[in-house]
Amino acid sequence: MFKTKYNYYGNLVEEFLSSLPLDESLLCSSMKYSLVAGGKRIRPVLALASAEAVGGDPLILIRVASALELIHTYSLIHDDLPCMDNDDYRRGKLSNHKQFNETIALLAGDALLTYGFELLAQSLPVDPKKQLLIVKETAQAVGWMGMVGGQVLDTLGENRKLSFSDIEKIHEKKTGDLLKASVRLGAILGGGTDDDIEKLTAYASNIGLAFQIKDDVLDIEGDAKELGKPVGSDEASNKSTYPSLLGLEGAKLHLNNCIAEAKGSIESFGLRGEFLSQLADYIANRKK
Amino acid sequence: MFKTKYNYYGNLVEEFLSSLPLDESLLCSSMKYSLVAGGKRIRPVLALASAEAVGGDPLILIRVASALELIHTYSLIHDDLPCMDNDDYRRGKLSNHKQFNETIALLAGDALLTYGFELLAQSLPVDPKKQLLIVKETAQAVGWMGMVGGQVLDTLGENRKLSFSDIEKIHEKKTGDLLKASVRLGAILGGGTDDDIEKLTAYASNIGLAFQIKDDVLDIEGDAKELGKPVGSDEASNKSTYPSLLGLEGAKLHLNNCIAEAKGSIESFGLRGEFLSQLADYIANRKK
Repeated sequence: MFKTKYNYYGNLVEEFLSSLPLDESLLCSSMKYSLVAGGKRIRPVLALASAEAVGGDPLILIRVASALELIHTYSLIHDDLPCMDNDDYRRGKLSNHKQFNETIALLAGDALLTYGFELLAQSLPVDPKKQLLIVKETAQAVGWMGMVGGQVLDTLGENRKLSFSDIEKIHEKKTGDLLKASVRLGAILGGGTDDDIEKLTAYASNIGLAFQIKDDVLDIEGDAKELGKPVGSDEASNKSTYPSLLGLEGAKLHLNNCIAEAKGSIESFGLRGEFLSQLADYIANRKK
Repeated sequence: MFKTKYNYYGNLVEEFLSSLPLDESLLCSSMKYSLVAGGKRIRPVLALASAEAVGGDPLILIRVASALELIHTYSLIHDDLPCMDNDDYRRGKLSNHKQFNETIALLAGDALLTYGFELLAQSLPVDPKKQLLIVKETAQAVGWMGMVGGQVLDTLGENRKLSFSDIEKIHEKKTGDLLKASVRLGAILGGGTDDDIEKLTAYASNIGLAFQIKDDVLDIEGDAKELGKPVGSDEASNKSTYPSLLGLEGAKLHLNNCIAEAKGSIESFGLRGEFLSQLADYIANRKK
């Protein structure tokens, strides 16, 4: 049931992404290469499910939900560049600059970010004021105060011992803010009340943290083949992680608390919140 | 008179840019470094002047006009990176990655682009549907079909003989589209009629071309000190330019034709179009 619905949302997004009018140029080939590299599409799925949870029609939001995946993909391409993490592989495939080259990868990232904003702003059958709010919130979530700011903190924090509050701040910015924006996009454009939106925002903050803790745990316990990337890299690079600060069991306990908090925030949604509640469990239990 | 008005618009933009709530972090310092590096602010000036030309109030558009400068600045930072033009200097100062480093320069560019969209979407006393249209048009102008697409064509065209239509296409995308979007932003949000907008769009196309031809001419005839960059680099790198295709005199003739066309498009604006008409002359006669 959960899986069927997840796949349904995910397939709507895949279908939309495949239908984007990108041409056969080198630039577009590079954009498509990373865009269809088989992510979990969790940000668009969160947006569509949140819209449905507040009684909205997810089908009219497929384009804006998918825009979040373009923005996420841009961040992965730039993250992998030699001047950043210098990763040769991503999801078991060559990273964009390895498949193409640095120039094209840089520009494909720039173009995906920009195209994301174009899709967010294309006309929709929703209140245009709310749509502008969504454009603004998404930009904030991935800008200097959000994702890019988190990237910088993460870079500066490498090879340095970080405190618990340091790593919470980095993750909140680097991955949490966009996950939160995804949920809020669905909740706001789906026509949620202020109370709905507030509860879903609390839900999103907790699954954002849970998502990152799980990433850290998978880097210790995960299967490299299933993950499509090597494990143990955090420990090898002496990176400050949840397990390095809390111990593996402590990190798992923190993960479970976040999931419980997330589910608690949307308890009053009853059946309407069931999928999101299961999604929280999915994040905690995922193998990749 | 023209200069006084240009400085007035430019100072409004400078004042706004200085008031942006950027903090003292390394990322924000890098963003500010390039943002206040003393450009001509021609994109925001075009937007404000176009709003005034159609009878709108430029003062309410300072934020969105300035957003164009953030987006332009991002493109310069990424352009200078080692994997792109590998330029050590920009406007007589160290380029961003030389002053900071590649990682910070990449991320400062990403953050400026994103912040530009945030500013474009912040609430304004204009029709929100028109504002969404502006966000979309700006994204198109600087995305894979516009500026980034032009960058790729330019990169692929290096050390290759290009035809006249090749270079027109590259420049239209690489610089023309954002100049056009700047004029349209002012014309649309300033409340112009469809006829106003159409005429100003034709004006913008022509000054976009003129701007680039003048750049090429300055690379031959300009003063390195005044330009803040070395001259003769196009010839040295065997780059296809207007003068290399049309001869220096032919390029100047083409420039003058574009300026005449631009001014002709807004002739019916009468006195309201005077500043824009003078701006076209300023582009043709500028020394830097």
